[in-house]
Amino acid sequence: MFLGIPIASGILALIFVVFLAIGVRRKPEGGETMVRIAGEIRKGAKAFLRREYTTVGAIVIILGGGIALTSLGWRTGASFALGAAVSALAGYIGMSIATRANSRTTEAAKSGVKSALGVAVSGGAVMGLSVVGLSLLGLGAVIYLFAPNLWSGAEASSSVLIAETGVINGFAMGASLMALFARAGGGIFTKGADMAADLVGKVEAGIPEDDPRNPAVIADNVGDNVGDVAGLGADLLESYVESIIASMALAAAIAVTGAGRNLILLPLAIAAIGVVGSIIGIFFTKLVGRSNPQAALSGGTYLAAGLTAAGTYFLFQWLGTPFEIAGVAYGQMGPFWATLAGIGSGVLIGLTSEYYTSSKYKPVKNLAEASQTNAAITVTEGLAVGMESLLLPVIVLGAAVMFSHYVAGMYGVAMAAVGMLATTGMVVSVDSYGPIADNAGGIAEMAKLDPSVRKVTDNLDAVGNTTAAIGKGFAIGSAALAALGLLSAYLTSIGSGEMISLSDPLVLAGLLFGAMLPFFFSSTLFRAVVKSANGLIAEVRRQFEKIPGLREGKEGVLPDSATCVDLATKHALRGMIVPGMLAILVPVTVGFLVGPLALAGLLVGAIASGVMLGVFTANSGGAMHNAKKYIEEGHFGGKGSVAHKSAVVGDTVGDPLKDTVGPSINILIKLMTVVSLVIAPILPGVMGG
Amino acid sequence: MFLGIPIASGILALIFVVFLAIGVRRKPEGGETMVRIAGEIRKGAKAFLRREYTTVGAIVIILGGGIALTSLGWRTGASFALGAAVSALAGYIGMSIATRANSRTTEAAKSGVKSALGVAVSGGAVMGLSVVGLSLLGLGAVIYLFAPNLWSGAEASSSVLIAETGVINGFAMGASLMALFARAGGGIFTKGADMAADLVGKVEAGIPEDDPRNPAVIADNVGDNVGDVAGLGADLLESYVESIIASMALAAAIAVTGAGRNLILLPLAIAAIGVVGSIIGIFFTKLVGRSNPQAALSGGTYLAAGLTAAGTYFLFQWLGTPFEIAGVAYGQMGPFWATLAGIGSGVLIGLTSEYYTSSKYKPVKNLAEASQTNAAITVTEGLAVGMESLLLPVIVLGAAVMFSHYVAGMYGVAMAAVGMLATTGMVVSVDSYGPIADNAGGIAEMAKLDPSVRKVTDNLDAVGNTTAAIGKGFAIGSAALAALGLLSAYLTSIGSGEMISLSDPLVLAGLLFGAMLPFFFSSTLFRAVVKSANGLIAEVRRQFEKIPGLREGKEGVLPDSATCVDLATKHALRGMIVPGMLAILVPVTVGFLVGPLALAGLLVGAIASGVMLGVFTANSGGAMHNAKKYIEEGHFGGKGSVAHKSAVVGDTVGDPLKDTVGPSINILIKLMTVVSLVIAPILPGVMGG
Repeated sequence: MFLGIPIASGILALIFVVFLAIGVRRKPEGGETMVRIAGEIRKGAKAFLRREYTTVGAIVIILGGGIALTSLGWRTGASFALGAAVSALAGYIGMSIATRANSRTTEAAKSGVKSALGVAVSGGAVMGLSVVGLSLLGLGAVIYLFAPNLWSGAEASSSVLIAETGVINGFAMGASLMALFARAGGGIFTKGADMAADLVGKVEAGIPEDDPRNPAVIADNVGDNVGDVAGLGADLLESYVESIIASMALAAAIAVTGAGRNLILLPLAIAAIGVVGSIIGIFFTKLVGRSNPQAALSGGTYLAAGLTAAGTYFLFQWLGTPFEIAGVAYGQMGPFWATLAGIGSGVLIGLTSEYYTSSKYKPVKNLAEASQTNAAITVTEGLAVGMESLLLPVIVLGAAVMFSHYVAGMYGVAMAAVGMLATTGMVVSVDSYGPIADNAGGIAEMAKLDPSVRKVTDNLDAVGNTTAAIGKGFAIGSAALAALGLLSAYLTSIGSGEMISLSDPLVLAGLLFGAMLPFFFSSTLFRAVVKSANGLIAEVRRQFEKIPGLREGKEGVLPDSATCVDLATKHALRGMIVPGMLAILVPVTVGFLVGPLALAGLLVGAIASGVMLGVFTANSGGAMHNAKKYIEEGHFGGKGSVAHKSAVVGDTVGDPLKDTVGPSINILIKLMTVVSLVIAPILPGVMGG
Repeated sequence: MFLGIPIASGILALIFVVFLAIGVRRKPEGGETMVRIAGEIRKGAKAFLRREYTTVGAIVIILGGGIALTSLGWRTGASFALGAAVSALAGYIGMSIATRANSRTTEAAKSGVKSALGVAVSGGAVMGLSVVGLSLLGLGAVIYLFAPNLWSGAEASSSVLIAETGVINGFAMGASLMALFARAGGGIFTKGADMAADLVGKVEAGIPEDDPRNPAVIADNVGDNVGDVAGLGADLLESYVESIIASMALAAAIAVTGAGRNLILLPLAIAAIGVVGSIIGIFFTKLVGRSNPQAALSGGTYLAAGLTAAGTYFLFQWLGTPFEIAGVAYGQMGPFWATLAGIGSGVLIGLTSEYYTSSKYKPVKNLAEASQTNAAITVTEGLAVGMESLLLPVIVLGAAVMFSHYVAGMYGVAMAAVGMLATTGMVVSVDSYGPIADNAGGIAEMAKLDPSVRKVTDNLDAVGNTTAAIGKGFAIGSAALAALGLLSAYLTSIGSGEMISLSDPLVLAGLLFGAMLPFFFSSTLFRAVVKSANGLIAEVRRQFEKIPGLREGKEGVLPDSATCVDLATKHALRGMIVPGMLAILVPVTVGFLVGPLALAGLLVGAIASGVMLGVFTANSGGAMHNAKKYIEEGHFGGKGSVAHKSAVVGDTVGDPLKDTVGPSINILIKLMTVVSLVIAPILPGVMGG
């Protein structure tokens, strides 16, 4: 019954992808310089993705083969490979259109914000709808191929259903692995290039941001696409798939007969409703954007969420029967309330991020003011803002956990994550809109268009900020909830009855080790970014020295941007391997060598410290970034003042925090948890395994 | 049987305190300027302590009264007040002699490193031996007064012994509360003053460090005493007392008959052995220091540890009987091996801190090299070093937990902490020696003595660095182990049978909330330091502007240092209140309003993220500090180069990380755990409470 709907809605999403993509490609591309620049960016981004996918592909084949050789079987291995492939495909499609939408947005910006908004939103929506469409189709395919009882809805024993959801977990693991590499690789690429462009360009050579003389600027723009479009798409695809699968796995383990049986496929049905809601939201945004850009993006987001909530409400009313979960009876609407709590807390978490990182509010204003003293004060205060910003989201998360558990048990906690992510189509659309607008601004600058065009694109960027913050709230909140859901599924799966002794030395050692991992993981990413930035800085300096007329901006003298893109690619690929393998090998090693209980402790520790480190780094970086922008708007002395110089240092410190480390940690904790869930059945001591 | 020994050794330690203090006071104080400067420092430090103790005293009276009014009873309240009083007294004695030893060390430095070392070691040893002597006497008094069955060694029921150790827990809570305020207040004082002195002096006015013209320099020196001497002393006193009490509480809950009964007082006996070992270590250091300063400090530390291990070995051989803990039989030497594992892992953790923070090794050298680009790179790389530095200590800690649990259960884990801290007398002596040498250097500079004197004091400082790193390893490692021991005691005490369900929403919400607290706590400390620094910066600028001839260094023109000291005091006292109350009120509120299980989750989360944040901040700050020093020694362009400017920013960011936030977090997690342990018997739902 349920499975037809998600597959149909997946196809629907892809139809709109084609429709929107054609719309974007039909728009005028702009003048010759713009076409050249956009072409360089597209070429660089494609080259990066090709090389990234080749590397990750090899890893996927090796790991998938390894999985197939264990008693998990070839189905799980194939499901894993398919998860990775779906994520790669979504990233490729999204990036491919985003790098076409950028110059077209610049061109449209010549006639104002309203028409530019339409192009950028369409470009972003291609990424957004590809993510949800491909996810649902992929999940449908895996269920059709490998989970016959789930597919047919036949009555089956608990162990059969658990085995079938176990195969589907492989899909989540594939998507998760791809996401980690995409985020880490893209994050290293984009921030290495960004830091280099800023440090040599703005600080050393004293030329403006996005100046065409700067050889690292194209790489910086490529980075926006591979990091913030393809990376973000893979990230949310993973969250989306994982929140669905966590709920399915929990449901399979706890409720397999009668009306309870519906619980297994329910998350897919809610996701399908969310797709429809997102499509309507996107078209609402495009429509309203013609008259009121400010209201369009947030209006579309709220509309999508509202429609999804309403649709879910009717779904539950229609299903009718009260649920029994793990022997406890919950009301008919229990999981619905959990879903609703997820949506609500996602919005709230987003608003707190907004409060701490937007220059409209006190924290960032104070940070800008504090920058008047010295860069050290900026950084210290910036770290303080990020650390303080944890308080409210964690209270909201805690309340969401307690409430959703109250109405529907651990399944409810996982369903809260599904609720947050049901509108992923809309959220990713808005999030991808940002880098497209950013790129459009860069192209305007590099093509030396009239400053009014840059002003329009800057406006576009600003319009999307609040909505993007809400999207970030969804990503962070859902990561925490999905990880808790997966953890619970893992504990059920190792048969610990979900009870754990905190006086067990293995659990305690695992806890400490797990809490350490996000920090160590972050250090490898920081290192990789610094290495890449240093490499690029040397190259930019070399070009300024060796290419006659470049620094002076002589007519017709172009920097060798391709070498910078190539360097950034090399550093990104090299830098993503260690953190990526860490996330896979650590849980496998600990699980097999030390045991499933130590692994449980490890996951608890990693989630506890990882969620905090993720929010802290994201908000610290965001606050420092916007404090710099606020000063550049003319406050506390504006550009060139002491405050500005301090803020630039703060922004540069914040760059890898918010765009490399923060988002990657979210994936790290989920990937480690899903790997543990996949290997759980074959760990020593589990069900005699 | 056991109790006579610890009390006697406490008295012995205090006899040596008097003896060493007299020795220090007999040394020549130096010339008039030196006497004046030392007097100002002493006056400022005393004024700060007086005001700090007044504030904390009021809080202690209110809380102690509150405890007395609950069913915990007046005994626990009195025990709590005594714990705080003992800590305050130790801090006062240590600081009082340290501020006399500083100018005397400068004076002795005129005749070389060897004689100066003797004075500084004696000064530090007064703090070290006061800490252990007063702790043991205080504990003895509490047991004598409030734990008659423990005192007499009479056979008693488990519940009676648990109630008696419950009263003693109050003593640990008092020491812990005092430590948190001392560390937070002292840390805000010292780093606010340090940042202000550096930013206005070195960066803005371009005058050297410790220049007498700088009005914030006296405050900076006062800060070294109140933060690094009194604060550190209170910190280690707390760890010392808590590791002993955690073992006692665990032993009381699990083994109360026959030979097992010995386990309750065993930690005190080992502490007593450690006192003797420390006294011998201190005199070894003073003796060897006359010929080989380099070997003296580390030799003394290793000797103290070795003697303590040997003494403990013979104690166990003498006791003879195998132990039964919680129904499991362990070998006769089980707790001894756990103690030894504690000593060994403490040394290892210290060596890893040394590796990551000393300019002798790659991480700091690379950091210095990376500083050549830009301050943002210094900070990013500095954060990366700190994050990476978690890997090895956490592995060592995990191994120590597993090993000590294997040989003696959870009691063994707590005993490992006792082992690490048995030589606290020696460790604190070496740690307090550092700031004395630092102060001596400052006085040499301010009194415009011959540069050779400053060179000697710099040498003194360097000699103590490795040994101080080992001390830091003991502090960090023992904090984690003691917290785990206290957590286990808490779980036993709330009767959860030490089992906990990770699918319990209260536990999960508690876990997230607990993991958030160390971050939020850190943000309040950062804020306080920045506020204090900004206040002082404004004052220093005002003085440079308003006092004619000050900036130019006109003969006879003195800055108004007292106003700076007063300002720093006000900010420190104001800044310590919120974080201090947080540590008390959060566990109490969560425990009573949400319940003991949520509190258990909270403690787990706080320990997991707190240990990591503590080590990360300490090592990041240490690495950035020493990278700056390394550059100042002439590497990468030396003073005035781009690298140096970047490193100064890094050092300033690192200051509050390593000296305010890092050490305070260690206390935070222990204070929250011990508060929970104290209130456990009266929490709702506990033993029908």
